Amino acid sequence: MQVRNYIKENEKRFYDELFSLIRIPSVSAQSEHKEDMIRCAERWRELLLQAGVDRCDIMPTSGNPIVFAEKRVSGAVRTVLVYGHYDVMPAEPLELWSSAPFEPEIRDGKIWARGADDDKGQSFMQLKAFEYLVKNQELKCNVKFILEGEEEIGSPSLDKFLRDNKELLKADVILVSDTSMISKATPSLTTGLRGLAYWQIKVTGPNRDLHSGHFGGAVANPINELCKIIARMVDENGRITIPGFYDDVVDMTPEEQENYARIPFDEEEYKKAIDITDVKGEVHYSTLERNSCRPSFDVCGIWGGYQGEGSKTVIPSVAQAKVSTRLVANQDHEKISKMFVDYVAQIAPKGVRVEVTPMHGGEAYLCPTDHFAYRAAEKGFYKAFGQKPVGVRRGGSIPIIANFEKILGIKTILMGFGLEDDAIHSPDENFDIDIFRKGIEAIVEFYNNLE
Amino acid sequence: MQVRNYIKENEKRFYDELFSLIRIPSVSAQSEHKEDMIRCAERWRELLLQAGVDRCDIMPTSGNPIVFAEKRVSGAVRTVLVYGHYDVMPAEPLELWSSAPFEPEIRDGKIWARGADDDKGQSFMQLKAFEYLVKNQELKCNVKFILEGEEEIGSPSLDKFLRDNKELLKADVILVSDTSMISKATPSLTTGLRGLAYWQIKVTGPNRDLHSGHFGGAVANPINELCKIIARMVDENGRITIPGFYDDVVDMTPEEQENYARIPFDEEEYKKAIDITDVKGEVHYSTLERNSCRPSFDVCGIWGGYQGEGSKTVIPSVAQAKVSTRLVANQDHEKISKMFVDYVAQIAPKGVRVEVTPMHGGEAYLCPTDHFAYRAAEKGFYKAFGQKPVGVRRGGSIPIIANFEKILGIKTILMGFGLEDDAIHSPDENFDIDIFRKGIEAIVEFYNNLE
Repeated sequence: MQVRNYIKENEKRFYDELFSLIRIPSVSAQSEHKEDMIRCAERWRELLLQAGVDRCDIMPTSGNPIVFAEKRVSGAVRTVLVYGHYDVMPAEPLELWSSAPFEPEIRDGKIWARGADDDKGQSFMQLKAFEYLVKNQELKCNVKFILEGEEEIGSPSLDKFLRDNKELLKADVILVSDTSMISKATPSLTTGLRGLAYWQIKVTGPNRDLHSGHFGGAVANPINELCKIIARMVDENGRITIPGFYDDVVDMTPEEQENYARIPFDEEEYKKAIDITDVKGEVHYSTLERNSCRPSFDVCGIWGGYQGEGSKTVIPSVAQAKVSTRLVANQDHEKISKMFVDYVAQIAPKGVRVEVTPMHGGEAYLCPTDHFAYRAAEKGFYKAFGQKPVGVRRGGSIPIIANFEKILGIKTILMGFGLEDDAIHSPDENFDIDIFRKGIEAIVEFYNNLE
Repeated sequence: MQVRNYIKENEKRFYDELFSLIRIPSVSAQSEHKEDMIRCAERWRELLLQAGVDRCDIMPTSGNPIVFAEKRVSGAVRTVLVYGHYDVMPAEPLELWSSAPFEPEIRDGKIWARGADDDKGQSFMQLKAFEYLVKNQELKCNVKFILEGEEEIGSPSLDKFLRDNKELLKADVILVSDTSMISKATPSLTTGLRGLAYWQIKVTGPNRDLHSGHFGGAVANPINELCKIIARMVDENGRITIPGFYDDVVDMTPEEQENYARIPFDEEEYKKAIDITDVKGEVHYSTLERNSCRPSFDVCGIWGGYQGEGSKTVIPSVAQAKVSTRLVANQDHEKISKMFVDYVAQIAPKGVRVEVTPMHGGEAYLCPTDHFAYRAAEKGFYKAFGQKPVGVRRGGSIPIIANFEKILGIKTILMGFGLEDDAIHSPDENFDIDIFRKGIEAIVEFYNNLE
């Protein structure tokens, strides 16, 4: 039976099953949902077993358990490890939802619910593609599944789980459906993710807030000094000034730049959507390149002194900022983190004490487009969507993807089906049914085209 | 009778009278004390009449009333206008007081209470010096008093009162006891005050907070841009970069700089007291000069983006700061305010909208040390304290002093008796009894030495 027919015939059951997952409010950030995490993991086990895995274990971690399942195919050469997560973001603010977040509804050709896309919907597509292949005896490789319950809180238990279960997780490639496409009209595969380094800077001047009349002009002001430190971090060409920062950066290949130039992108629309008059970034790179293939330096928060109504004339004792860089392929976040600490120490002005606290970080990820599984994913997309997907790097960071490579030594194929409009992490999260169907087909064709 | 004897004989009554003023909690910032403002003004009228003025009126304003009193002396050439204020700062936090703020106590040679110094104590010294001169038929000039009830909230009604009563307030000099001396060991007269200009800067980027992964590197970040604007305001020599900023500055005379070099000042103690390793400011000027005779530029508050625990990866939509400059003699605060607005507009980066809102301002003040009344004040101090007072400019701003000159055309002599330790505006405000006595004597001798 063809996959499209299989989907059509089983679609009602698919929604019933998916909705049974969605109805369990598995919000990892909220401790009152601790029981729901277990219920959701158990529901996944039922569905995995029904879909045709040989075994499925709910494996404890120091946090929420990880669901592991496996299907061995006799004579198979390849093993695919599918990763997804069964936890979701909090649904609050509830009053902004058009329908209840944990009561999924289909309307206007979309599924509306928390987790409809991220990542219950997308993980479920992986499961249904697998089910089709098993039921129709088309599966030619071994398949493993891991579904974690802490992705939305930074996967605190995953690294240890990977380290402790290297043998169990052995595979030729990891397949993840948890990212987005450029648009419905431009299907795409994610070929890279940026890394991250994040710090808090604390500048301490006098031991108490001082009267700006009595002391102004004679004493270093922590806010003025913090601003000077931050202002130095990016030069007038939009390049980060931390010495050595770009040393390990793998630049875009001419081929990749040509590809980027062909991606449909309306800069005027982009500016209009966020209401800015001009884009701004590193010289010699386009907006799409800047926000995905090049590093960035952003202050995410700053505070100090008087923030209330009116005016208060004070030299504050302390000023602080949260700053971050997005990193690209080959940059080591720990090395960059140390570089920044050293650089700030080097440029720290006299008269104040400057402390930098590294907060967290993660490596960037880059998937070569000549990877055997990437080529299979391309073919899968082509079959399902009728066009070759564009390969694009994404600006966000999914540290676990880099860690899969670091710990398990396995590349990941990011076969994500989300859309900008899906409102993941926001009220009225939704997922397009047409994409839901095509995505299952694309995954089936991925398996069929695995070399 | 000599003034010292007069004080000794009447000291108990003096305290009773002063305490009767202090016991009225005339907190101008707190509307629940509206009635107390009237009560305090009326108590002042009683005390002024008892001390010997010819007339005393409680004159309404759109805010708290102003107490005006007058004593004419036949054949007098000079008229002295004494200014003081009967309102006080809020006493909160009450738990930090060693004794109740509105229940004055004498212990360890000091009066402890809100207003003990600022400005009930100091204004009362003016009244008692006047009383001595009247009772002993030594007063040789006309004396006027104005006591306002809104000084601690920025004197919102005073300017109009001055403009409406120019004839009534006509005088040769204004005498104010509302400032401090360098120390008990180094009596001083305040010869200048700094002016002020204050603005709020708002930098707006995208219409909402953006994901720093998806947009970082391609969009101007309002905090980064605000920091760059602020960082440009002061150069590496500690000079303010606003074009034209120093054009009208009256620099210190060589004589004034020599005077300053002689003022006892322990920079190590200064740094230790506020726990800083280095002072910082404009090149070629000393700390004392920097914080009183030279302009300064301070950020008083800054905020934007995520300020909570942990890390959030966001490009904020808006960043804001409260910034101020202290101005010196001859700088026009309105002209400076406009200069800053123009300068920020000129350097405002692309990709963000920058708005500058002028908040408030005031002129600096400078009193020539060859002024007839300044010389009388010097002699008064010499008689009472046994040494010639040092003439020093102060870094703070008292806009009303500049306005006296601007509106009434009269110079002010700042004959203040406060000490650093008096904790004005803070818990445990206090006033030294020894200084209280010597101050009254110094004021008497001021009148006696008026030419």
